[in-house]
Amino acid sequence: GILKAKILVVSTTASKDPSTDASGGILTNVFETEGAGKWKVEEVKIVGDDVLEIQRNVTAWTDGENAVNLIISTGGTGFAVSDTTPEAITPLLHKQAPGLVHGMLAASLAVTPFALMSRPVAGVRNKTIIVTLPGSPKGAKENLQSILKLLPHACSQAAGADSRALHAGG
Amino acid sequence: GILKAKILVVSTTASKDPSTDASGGILTNVFETEGAGKWKVEEVKIVGDDVLEIQRNVTAWTDGENAVNLIISTGGTGFAVSDTTPEAITPLLHKQAPGLVHGMLAASLAVTPFALMSRPVAGVRNKTIIVTLPGSPKGAKENLQSILKLLPHACSQAAGADSRALHAGG
Amino acid sequence: GILKAKILVVSTTASKDPSTDASGGILTNVFETEGAGKWKVEEVKIVGDDVLEIQRNVTAWTDGENAVNLIISTGGTGFAVSDTTPEAITPLLHKQAPGLVHGMLAASLAVTPFALMSRPVAGVRNKTIIVTLPGSPKGAKENLQSILKLLPHACSQAAGADSRALHAGG
Ligand code: NA
Repeated sequence: GILKAKILVVSTTASKDPSTDASGGILTNVFETEGAGKWKVEEVKIVGDDVLEIQRNVTAWTDGENAVNLIISTGGTGFAVSDTTPEAITPLLHKQAPGLVHGMLAASLAVTPFALMSRPVAGVRNKTIIVTLPGSPKGAKENLQSILKLLPHACSQAAGADSRALHAGG
Repeated sequence: GILKAKILVVSTTASKDPSTDASGGILTNVFETEGAGKWKVEEVKIVGDDVLEIQRNVTAWTDGENAVNLIISTGGTGFAVSDTTPEAITPLLHKQAPGLVHGMLAASLAVTPFALMSRPVAGVRNKTIIVTLPGSPKGAKENLQSILKLLPHACSQAAGADSRALHAGG
Repeated sequence: GILKAKILVVSTTASKDPSTDASGGILTNVFETEGAGKWKVEEVKIVGDDVLEIQRNVTAWTDGENAVNLIISTGGTGFAVSDTTPEAITPLLHKQAPGLVHGMLAASLAVTPFALMSRPVAGVRNKTIIVTLPGSPKGAKENLQSILKLLPHACSQAAGADSRALHAGG
């Protein structure tokens, strides 16, 4: 069936003026044009760089009956004091996914060494895969593209499909 | 001297029907044929996808007088609810070994992007190196091969050899 | 302005006989000759492989009014019982920087697989970037060189510069 994704744009600037956000639309477009018809982006939500606000939205999307298969965040992964997306999301994860982190960093590193300044996390909460992307539209797009083909399998496993029937990392 | 290794096959299926496990024999063969005569695989044990059962076996192999130099697990590193090997082993580690994780992921990524769906951990408990491999025989074999030449040095350091006398990462 | 760095040499041997340390001078030289005039190495201090001694020095350099922009440690990242630099530094970090870790490991792996025996950590405490390098002068130098061009941006972000004005990973 169709996999459900939600995108969380983390940016204090964009939370005050949504017109300044480019990443939400670009990432939605990647799912629609490069996602092999497997994805429905149900929502793009903009929040400020605020740990509790990030956590409230993520858990609302993972913990109830309407949980989605995938949450992608963009922004808040840099070194500034206000960059707290990884710190907000890490304690919510039931499982870490270092392979997805490795894949994003390796792909970005092949484009520019400045990609190493991102601080990505990835993992599973309940039956939802969660991945943090950087805030720059270009970086976010490249990171998503680098793991897009894997995400359907990861989401299917997390949702309860028999892992033996899939290309399995485990 | 000869280094002692034990292999923990984590698979609920194989724990009920050992004939379904291929990884244990394949990994043993890698130590015997590519291990430069340095390894003795003392035991291959199959357990279910159960956190406590995994932890009980690992600590029995690391905490006593008969502790081994190396524990390799295979299986339980995917995204399914039942995949809990990394979550079982991580809290047992006294030291994380991100370099070994990086090496396995980089080597696997060169073969197939689906390798990024594994969630490996590696590290040290007491004087024993512990590494988790994926469950697929092909993936497990490739991961082990990618770090096999390093493991004697890592095990010797962990067992108390003078690190200055070895090729040292530290 | 000029960025302030301090180097912590972690080595019980060198703490007893400073003449045995080569890494401190070599790393200082990397900053001076390859740092594009952006760095001042304010201090090279040698401590033993002791968790509390490492932590006392790091926090003295990150928590007060004279906090530096960057702390580089060298040594204590191997697999020996005495190698505890990552374990000393990890709990002090307010933010993890897996991108910098990835960059160092990827660069080292291109030189030698034995680089995978290092166990690096990187991150931020208050406004200071902290990175652990291996103890071997060659490995430490290569690791530093692999991320040197990124460090001014990371340090500027951590110190409070507007991340939108920089090449930003976040
Ligand atoms: Na990595």
